[in-house]
Amino acid sequence: MIVVLKSNPNQKQLDNLMMWLRSMDLDIHTSEGSKHTILGLVGDTSKVDIDLISALDIVDEVKRIQEPYKNANRKFHPEDSVIDVNGVKIGGGNFQIIAGPCSVETEEQICEVAKDVKASGATLLRGGAFKPRTSPYSFQGLANEGLRLLLEAKAMTGLPIVTEIMDMSQLDLFGEVDIIQVGARNMQNFMLLKELGKTNKPILLKRGLSSTLEELLMSAEYIMAGGNEKVILCERGIRTFETYTRNTLDLSAIPVLKRLTHLPIIIDPSHSTGKAALVEPMSLAATAAGADGLIIEVHNDPQHALCDGPQSITPAAFDKLSKKIFGLRNFLTEEN
Amino acid sequence: MIVVLKSNPNQKQLDNLMMWLRSMDLDIHTSEGSKHTILGLVGDTSKVDIDLISALDIVDEVKRIQEPYKNANRKFHPEDSVIDVNGVKIGGGNFQIIAGPCSVETEEQICEVAKDVKASGATLLRGGAFKPRTSPYSFQGLANEGLRLLLEAKAMTGLPIVTEIMDMSQLDLFGEVDIIQVGARNMQNFMLLKELGKTNKPILLKRGLSSTLEELLMSAEYIMAGGNEKVILCERGIRTFETYTRNTLDLSAIPVLKRLTHLPIIIDPSHSTGKAALVEPMSLAATAAGADGLIIEVHNDPQHALCDGPQSITPAAFDKLSKKIFGLRNFLTEEN
Amino acid sequence: MIVVLKSNPNQKQLDNLMMWLRSMDLDIHTSEGSKHTILGLVGDTSKVDIDLISALDIVDEVKRIQEPYKNANRKFHPEDSVIDVNGVKIGGGNFQIIAGPCSVETEEQICEVAKDVKASGATLLRGGAFKPRTSPYSFQGLANEGLRLLLEAKAMTGLPIVTEIMDMSQLDLFGEVDIIQVGARNMQNFMLLKELGKTNKPILLKRGLSSTLEELLMSAEYIMAGGNEKVILCERGIRTFETYTRNTLDLSAIPVLKRLTHLPIIIDPSHSTGKAALVEPMSLAATAAGADGLIIEVHNDPQHALCDGPQSITPAAFDKLSKKIFGLRNFLTEEN
Amino acid sequence: MIVVLKSNPNQKQLDNLMMWLRSMDLDIHTSEGSKHTILGLVGDTSKVDIDLISALDIVDEVKRIQEPYKNANRKFHPEDSVIDVNGVKIGGGNFQIIAGPCSVETEEQICEVAKDVKASGATLLRGGAFKPRTSPYSFQGLANEGLRLLLEAKAMTGLPIVTEIMDMSQLDLFGEVDIIQVGARNMQNFMLLKELGKTNKPILLKRGLSSTLEELLMSAEYIMAGGNEKVILCERGIRTFETYTRNTLDLSAIPVLKRLTHLPIIIDPSHSTGKAALVEPMSLAATAAGADGLIIEVHNDPQHALCDGPQSITPAAFDKLSKKIFGLRNFLTEEN
Repeated sequence: MIVVLKSNPNQKQLDNLMMWLRSMDLDIHTSEGSKHTILGLVGDTSKVDIDLISALDIVDEVKRIQEPYKNANRKFHPEDSVIDVNGVKIGGGNFQIIAGPCSVETEEQICEVAKDVKASGATLLRGGAFKPRTSPYSFQGLANEGLRLLLEAKAMTGLPIVTEIMDMSQLDLFGEVDIIQVGARNMQNFMLLKELGKTNKPILLKRGLSSTLEELLMSAEYIMAGGNEKVILCERGIRTFETYTRNTLDLSAIPVLKRLTHLPIIIDPSHSTGKAALVEPMSLAATAAGADGLIIEVHNDPQHALCDGPQSITPAAFDKLSKKIFGLRNFLTEEN
Repeated sequence: MIVVLKSNPNQKQLDNLMMWLRSMDLDIHTSEGSKHTILGLVGDTSKVDIDLISALDIVDEVKRIQEPYKNANRKFHPEDSVIDVNGVKIGGGNFQIIAGPCSVETEEQICEVAKDVKASGATLLRGGAFKPRTSPYSFQGLANEGLRLLLEAKAMTGLPIVTEIMDMSQLDLFGEVDIIQVGARNMQNFMLLKELGKTNKPILLKRGLSSTLEELLMSAEYIMAGGNEKVILCERGIRTFETYTRNTLDLSAIPVLKRLTHLPIIIDPSHSTGKAALVEPMSLAATAAGADGLIIEVHNDPQHALCDGPQSITPAAFDKLSKKIFGLRNFLTEEN
Repeated sequence: MIVVLKSNPNQKQLDNLMMWLRSMDLDIHTSEGSKHTILGLVGDTSKVDIDLISALDIVDEVKRIQEPYKNANRKFHPEDSVIDVNGVKIGGGNFQIIAGPCSVETEEQICEVAKDVKASGATLLRGGAFKPRTSPYSFQGLANEGLRLLLEAKAMTGLPIVTEIMDMSQLDLFGEVDIIQVGARNMQNFMLLKELGKTNKPILLKRGLSSTLEELLMSAEYIMAGGNEKVILCERGIRTFETYTRNTLDLSAIPVLKRLTHLPIIIDPSHSTGKAALVEPMSLAATAAGADGLIIEVHNDPQHALCDGPQSITPAAFDKLSKKIFGLRNFLTEEN
Repeated sequence: MIVVLKSNPNQKQLDNLMMWLRSMDLDIHTSEGSKHTILGLVGDTSKVDIDLISALDIVDEVKRIQEPYKNANRKFHPEDSVIDVNGVKIGGGNFQIIAGPCSVETEEQICEVAKDVKASGATLLRGGAFKPRTSPYSFQGLANEGLRLLLEAKAMTGLPIVTEIMDMSQLDLFGEVDIIQVGARNMQNFMLLKELGKTNKPILLKRGLSSTLEELLMSAEYIMAGGNEKVILCERGIRTFETYTRNTLDLSAIPVLKRLTHLPIIIDPSHSTGKAALVEPMSLAATAAGADGLIIEVHNDPQHALCDGPQSITPAAFDKLSKKIFGLRNFLTEEN
């Protein structure tokens, strides 16, 4: 961490600052220029509150050199994390496709889709029981009944299930859920993150619509700081000025996150683009860029999906797509 | 609502669509062109799920003409709403300044600031007890103890208090709080919004960092649909590419929201800019643009604030500023 | 095009509007609701100025159904365009890699890089002679001398060359240049676009930092409306709030543009990310998403590049990368 | 400028870097930590190419402390610049309103508007002769004839005129123009900026749609580095995700620019919002925030304006507005 002091700092304030910094076990290297004095802080600065220092009268600017996250940081954990979900592994060379409908609607629907996507190679089943919707007048999900149907589909197919939690009060309901999803709107619901940090469930943490990659990692850090290291990151598009796609899928997040963290990264080509026709090219691109997996919306009757129909693909389309994805993945793995 | 059909739509699907639309008590006006057929839907379309229609195979595009919110809509409620907070009125020509520290830190701090800002003309006291922080290692607020101190400051000064809720599980603790604030990160925490809709507390709803004004109104609609009409909207900056200010304060939100809704609109010049030096010009600008109030951070020792010090102003600076704001407000009111 | 009228429009103004629309050979289908009257305009609306209609007192809203571009529109030109650059074909299944340094610096540098990238499979050489730089104090390129050196490298290797024009006054200097590049900052330099429309040179048109895909196509339309159909589109990252990468590479632009237009689309993984380490994963992702080519910065001494060094890769790295790209491209082509 | 070196830098490369930095007359202060070595560079670093240093193998990160612009920097020119336009002064306490139509259309139109806005207190006349339009099929302005009509209106009313240049080849036509406007799309047309730097005309430089304030100042620096110090900055909205307004007017740009530069800053409430109803509140807000002037679109028949009608106000509305603006301005001036 570098602290640039204003010219002619008040000596007493400077002494206080120095004492305070040393109390945090930091070494201080001072470089005095004619206009500015620069302090170089060496040691574990991840827990130093940068706002506190910036606020001081004698400080012009503070700049981190070390990242502000530690548990999620690849520097302190060079090996890829592998998250084991009931025997299905994600990360560290293990690539998985999560598939299923946006919302669970009926027993027939979820079971049929589950069988179909399993037959096509998906190893995890997704489906929403609690649905965050912009309008209070839109379908809000089947709630508990949706969870029950998901568990039936799991029992029938053996596929571990992924579903979204909307509030920490629901946590008790998620006992049989294999991966708890935190949606983009909840990425900075810090109380929820802290609660999830106390569980030992794998967490699928989606990037917020206007969150930087550093903020995504800080949210992962909230979970990990509580003791739960099983975090799977998910890029699902960011909000930009472009309106043709629902959001802008930021695929450079894959190699960037791979450098910054040891956690697995998966991509959601369905919600990010909002258009079924873009799911295939974006799935292939994500795979080529090195993603550890994909989460794809599949609905057996997209025309009558109760939510997000325009981006769902049919089981038949998914079957063709998953063959292409696995083919590409094999090609790329053999190449290396 | 306008539905543009694809060319040569399947007749059976079209019949189904027509029947379904009529079942929602909508009148349908059909306009057949050589390439496209256009359906004009007339009636109360605010509760029609636009995604459902867009998903249909035979539909090319759907476009709302009416806004998707009703309770918050000025069209159905032409008069300004006035929110009464323990006798302090906001909206409909009533302008208020909310002031106080980012976080409650000590009894001395909050009480001293409360006395000072009251003397300078503030009519409501703000202060954070539960603080949403990007890093799990940053100061997270005094929690219950912070609430207790706020209530002491209220008892001492008579100022109604505004403080942020972070999760619906905290609602019981907010019994004595006068305005419950929903922070930007929670603007789309729909479960929290629904719970707040069941209370009769005034809600200060902050715009999310990447939320459109329509989404802000949809979140207000969540609260209002539950029966609680006391919503105060707050613009606090949106996320853009500009990095000099923390966020970009969108003051055009004031006249836009004034047209779209009857709810009062206040501005937060402190969090949006993140810089104390910008608080005065942005406060004056917001007042000139027609805001119903301001929420300003004041700290008696900004250098040692435990959070967000760089944007806080001192009680002395606030005193000068509030004189300017009220002077400007009086000038503008007399003008009209 | 759909025109939504305000309720109770002035009859005389409505008659004028109808007459004016008919004078443009448009058929008008009227749909009268209880609150709104909707006009559906059928015919060639690509040349109708939407602003003019929106401005009318009696009009509430205007919405295009047809795209506002015609020459670039795939609807009117279903087959992929193939751009022939001195025998090197781009588009319609022809995939090319353009490589070379950001700036031409010395004869030795450009010729060495040219030989190297040709040996690795690049079929076109890039290099900047005129450099748009944010600061007037940064290196601005070798100008005419840079062009001369590029032509030497072309003579030596036979590679057609691509270089950026900064102003239409430079057009005479570009007689021997094979592809004229229009940079992101000039994407809406309409006078330059019009001049380029009068030439018969292939144009590499880069998307502006904050331009929508529709605006990119409108800029292509400027060139094509002048008679020059040889436009190659290039996605090179858009400006967002994320700061880890220089810009956010929008790879969904590839399938979106493939649907909207018949023009070829190439990707610039170097400028978009601004980081050499991201060039490989983003190149592979772009290839998998269906790009018609890539434009990659290669410098024989990236440490001493006079501009944009951090994103350049060495000839040795390019050699490995191009093998991977062509391998992937072959795999994908055989798959289909 | 601070240079953070990677751990264990190659000694020879480090020696080269030191020698090179010293050759630019910079003092170097070294601070060696256990993990990082930090160089503090003291002296005039505004002309150091930060990219060159960042690219070095041994460098981890470079961070400016000084701003990269000098002529535009308030630090080196503490007094406000006052730009004299044929006797009309802008900046340093002088506030002006520029008004007129988006496009010059007919002699009657421009002369009538000119007389009207002069009578209402405007001191400069705006009007477009060359119009940058997204579509090649939209009205492109009257060109030379438009300039001629503007000069007639100037002769008749005595108002100095402001009009936009689109390419440096037009410069000869602008001999009688009083302020040359550089539009948002041309803010980084560096060849044009350099040419304008050779003139002694006042330049109205509009901020680009996705340009940071620092980039705006760097573009001003291009003009000033050529010897022309008469630059007026103009904020006209930036591109964000919000779609209700055409762009998002960033009024915090006013106090920020006032701190960073001595150049005057004016605001364009018409183009930024794109809606006539927002012009008044945004004009008042800009005035309250300390702008040095406003540029407002006025059209005597907004319904039939050939471009940008929806945001133009009538002369009658302008008359009322300018009274309010001047009243507010007087109030604020007397306050201080």
